[in-house]
Amino acid sequence: MCQLLGMNCNVPTDVTFSFSGFAQRGGHTDHHADGWGIAFFEGSGLRHFVDHQAACDSPVAELIRRYPIRSRNVIAHIRKATQGEVALENCHPFVRELWGCYWVFAHNGDLKNFHPRLHGSFHPVGSTDSELAFCWLLQELAKSHAGVPSVQELTLTLRELTPRIAAHGPFNFMLSNGQALWTHCSTNLFYVERRHPFSHAHLADEDVSIDFARNTSPQDRVAVIVTAPLTTNETWVQMAADELKVFVDGAAAG
Amino acid sequence: MCQLLGMNCNVPTDVTFSFSGFAQRGGHTDHHADGWGIAFFEGSGLRHFVDHQAACDSPVAELIRRYPIRSRNVIAHIRKATQGEVALENCHPFVRELWGCYWVFAHNGDLKNFHPRLHGSFHPVGSTDSELAFCWLLQELAKSHAGVPSVQELTLTLRELTPRIAAHGPFNFMLSNGQALWTHCSTNLFYVERRHPFSHAHLADEDVSIDFARNTSPQDRVAVIVTAPLTTNETWVQMAADELKVFVDGAAAG
Repeated sequence: MCQLLGMNCNVPTDVTFSFSGFAQRGGHTDHHADGWGIAFFEGSGLRHFVDHQAACDSPVAELIRRYPIRSRNVIAHIRKATQGEVALENCHPFVRELWGCYWVFAHNGDLKNFHPRLHGSFHPVGSTDSELAFCWLLQELAKSHAGVPSVQELTLTLRELTPRIAAHGPFNFMLSNGQALWTHCSTNLFYVERRHPFSHAHLADEDVSIDFARNTSPQDRVAVIVTAPLTTNETWVQMAADELKVFVDGAAAG
Repeated sequence: MCQLLGMNCNVPTDVTFSFSGFAQRGGHTDHHADGWGIAFFEGSGLRHFVDHQAACDSPVAELIRRYPIRSRNVIAHIRKATQGEVALENCHPFVRELWGCYWVFAHNGDLKNFHPRLHGSFHPVGSTDSELAFCWLLQELAKSHAGVPSVQELTLTLRELTPRIAAHGPFNFMLSNGQALWTHCSTNLFYVERRHPFSHAHLADEDVSIDFARNTSPQDRVAVIVTAPLTTNETWVQMAADELKVFVDGAAAG
């Protein structure tokens, strides 16, 4: 199984601190060494980095740790291959365009006997169950809405579609169009909402602390969602099984 | 106007030498400082880097110069904005998926009164004429072929479609699906085919030389295509106006 990291904020925020701890799980503090990836929205644009090397050894991951890219929506993934060989085309997150927006998707789980009919415009490039699920989700979203719907409408449609995939096995996922971050929990997903008054946090996977109060303004709100809590001294909320939650402007919105 | 760089090879080759000289044009030896981007195919997978900073200053470009990513098909672009503001979503190359393959496109030129009807599955995220032309090209390719056609068939279809865009203005472009690299010249495009016996080359934009004989085997073939010759001591072939050329396995194939 893999690990997921998502961040949703009301102002562009750098993910360096969270990614630094998370990347340690890609080979150091955990065994997810079969590739990794991260996508940052910047406005409607996207930076997308994938690598089939372990995140803890990857020169590209080293760049991300050092170069503070500021974003309101980030999705990262470190991979422990279950389906699909270790190859670049099988690294999450996956990206497609729909309605003139980029969509980013990453999955942790294992779908069995999942062979949906793809009769639309989205087809997997690699051989993972995850990319197949993403292509099917986008196909069904495209069929359900003529143009780009509101976040609330998208959430309702996703709540209808998700159980049809989750029936095939664990389907923890993160999805973003740069406007909101949708997360679905089958087995493990935790989140924390950071807001004023900010305090300091200590990473679970590295001996690193940060004082958020020094780098934030009172209006800032940041939600971080992850497979297993990243810090030892914050209150992480565990999502329930089969719960789909959408984060907007740094807070859970439904 | 912008500058384009493409590389097509029969074995995965690193583009460090050519990119190093090319990136100097993004702010140092030339004025193309409104962003840049590069995409590398690795098998069917893709690494895609874009940045709205000048290529000569960008930490991501610095990574590419130092970290030899080996690829058989590479497209890079440095931008001098003509249409569309300086923003990440307007940086070339652009990426879409069609028929389960990634497609990469970059353009140098300026299309006037170009308002094609987009009734298919591809819509621009940014505001450039270039991404619009790419979306229309993919829409028309998708309509012309039920599944992924041969390189020869794609070349014929592109030869039919390209003049319909080029009627609107300069349309130098590069397009790849990881299998071949198509280039179209309206105004400026040069290429060199490197093959055995390899010799040394000297960059035009930096005082750097390389002896290709030391890093190659006799079977290697590499084609490099660019807006203006990158080296001072190789024979660059200038493409004719309105010429569309496809490169396969490191050589011009038609």
